[in-house]
Amino acid sequence: MTMTMGQMVIHLTKGIDTPDTSVDLLDPELRNTEIQGIVTAFCASQYVIEQAISLGANFIITHEGIYYSHHEMRECLLHDPVYLHKSRLVADSGVGIYRFHDTIHRYQPDGVMVGLLQALDWHPYVVKQQPSSAILTIPAMQVKEIAEYIKAKLHIRYVRVAGEVSMPCERVGILVGYRGGGELAIPLFLHEHVDLIIAGEGPEWETPEYVKDAVYQGKNKALIMLGHAESEVPGMKYLADTLSTQFPMLPVYFVEDRPVFQIL
Amino acid sequence: MTMTMGQMVIHLTKGIDTPDTSVDLLDPELRNTEIQGIVTAFCASQYVIEQAISLGANFIITHEGIYYSHHEMRECLLHDPVYLHKSRLVADSGVGIYRFHDTIHRYQPDGVMVGLLQALDWHPYVVKQQPSSAILTIPAMQVKEIAEYIKAKLHIRYVRVAGEVSMPCERVGILVGYRGGGELAIPLFLHEHVDLIIAGEGPEWETPEYVKDAVYQGKNKALIMLGHAESEVPGMKYLADTLSTQFPMLPVYFVEDRPVFQIL
Repeated sequence: MTMTMGQMVIHLTKGIDTPDTSVDLLDPELRNTEIQGIVTAFCASQYVIEQAISLGANFIITHEGIYYSHHEMRECLLHDPVYLHKSRLVADSGVGIYRFHDTIHRYQPDGVMVGLLQALDWHPYVVKQQPSSAILTIPAMQVKEIAEYIKAKLHIRYVRVAGEVSMPCERVGILVGYRGGGELAIPLFLHEHVDLIIAGEGPEWETPEYVKDAVYQGKNKALIMLGHAESEVPGMKYLADTLSTQFPMLPVYFVEDRPVFQIL
Repeated sequence: MTMTMGQMVIHLTKGIDTPDTSVDLLDPELRNTEIQGIVTAFCASQYVIEQAISLGANFIITHEGIYYSHHEMRECLLHDPVYLHKSRLVADSGVGIYRFHDTIHRYQPDGVMVGLLQALDWHPYVVKQQPSSAILTIPAMQVKEIAEYIKAKLHIRYVRVAGEVSMPCERVGILVGYRGGGELAIPLFLHEHVDLIIAGEGPEWETPEYVKDAVYQGKNKALIMLGHAESEVPGMKYLADTLSTQFPMLPVYFVEDRPVFQIL
């Protein structure tokens, strides 16, 4: 039994309403190309594409785009040597790259969130699943203990923390990806009574400044920023496991790239 | 000689065209209030406001806003206890808070950039000042040496670095605040031939992913993210020094708050 890239996209998007402006796209010319193997990844980086080719996988399902922007391919990249090198490799190799962003976030619950909660072994603690966040009641731990727990579970080297690290927490709000901004994160403190927010990324002077003010006012609130990729990698790994089970005849790999940053 | 808050705003904005949508605002009711003392700060945090009050300064000039958002005061904050505590203090104390963001960035050269370059002792190395960036040719140093130099000069505890830390750099592009995103930063590699970009903040999967790809392709490029506040604090400190010289009869203080994040 064979499967085309177009059939896989239909499978992944079945029953999900995505907006007309969705960034989830597959080159229409590749719709009828037969899948030889699948790689899932947070981002279709140069490394990920080369790994896919060497694994014999011709279909990459990536959460973020290929060319360094949410809406892809700006004018400014047209003569850029990094862009040219990468786009040439994509064209020459015939690898199909499907961005799977808006749809997986619209799964109920959010597929990226499910992967993160599984990786943290925290899925039994979820008390509420919302479109952009999950609310958990966990066994009481200090912020610094939670930070160490997360680092060990997700195999990440650091997290950025706002608030008192010795503060005990039980009620936790989690937001993956770029949902750590004030508009989505701050209301969870009031409306969901969370002690701690764990997010991927967000503007530094929104939620972190709020938490700094709260602590200075004597209120117990804290924030752990995991990193954008760090918060979404488990979701793409979980997707590889799911596809592997659903399509045992297809080779499916998750490829993890190095972190973008190191701390100096 | 006395000076009102309105007169100071006129002084600060003289000759600068700011857009109608500018976030640089002073409560019109405070225009005729006499300045007793000035505090400049990156952000009018709870700590900064309390410091200003205890210093007897009734006018705060802040780069970022008071309420955790670029466009201020969202509906969601109206019943928030952190917001209520802070806004009550502002109202009760009669402190005037002027956001000085769009205008100082439109100074030629950008006033925030001038402060950062002075703090780094790098102003003699500037070869080009652009509206959103400065291009420098510095004495050759490795990325890690530059990171250590910056940490010492700016008194900051860490920076986030993408690229090879042993790469030597001479041509550097600097972008303050939230200008580290792909659209402003990436073209500097091609058009300005920079080896290294030093920025405040920007989405993690834009410029950092570009640098990761570039390095993987064997191209020498690097990125140092200072932090949003860390990149703009020197500009607001520099402003305090400037106002001190221009208005010797006015007490002028720069108040530095703690960093929003610690690394765990």
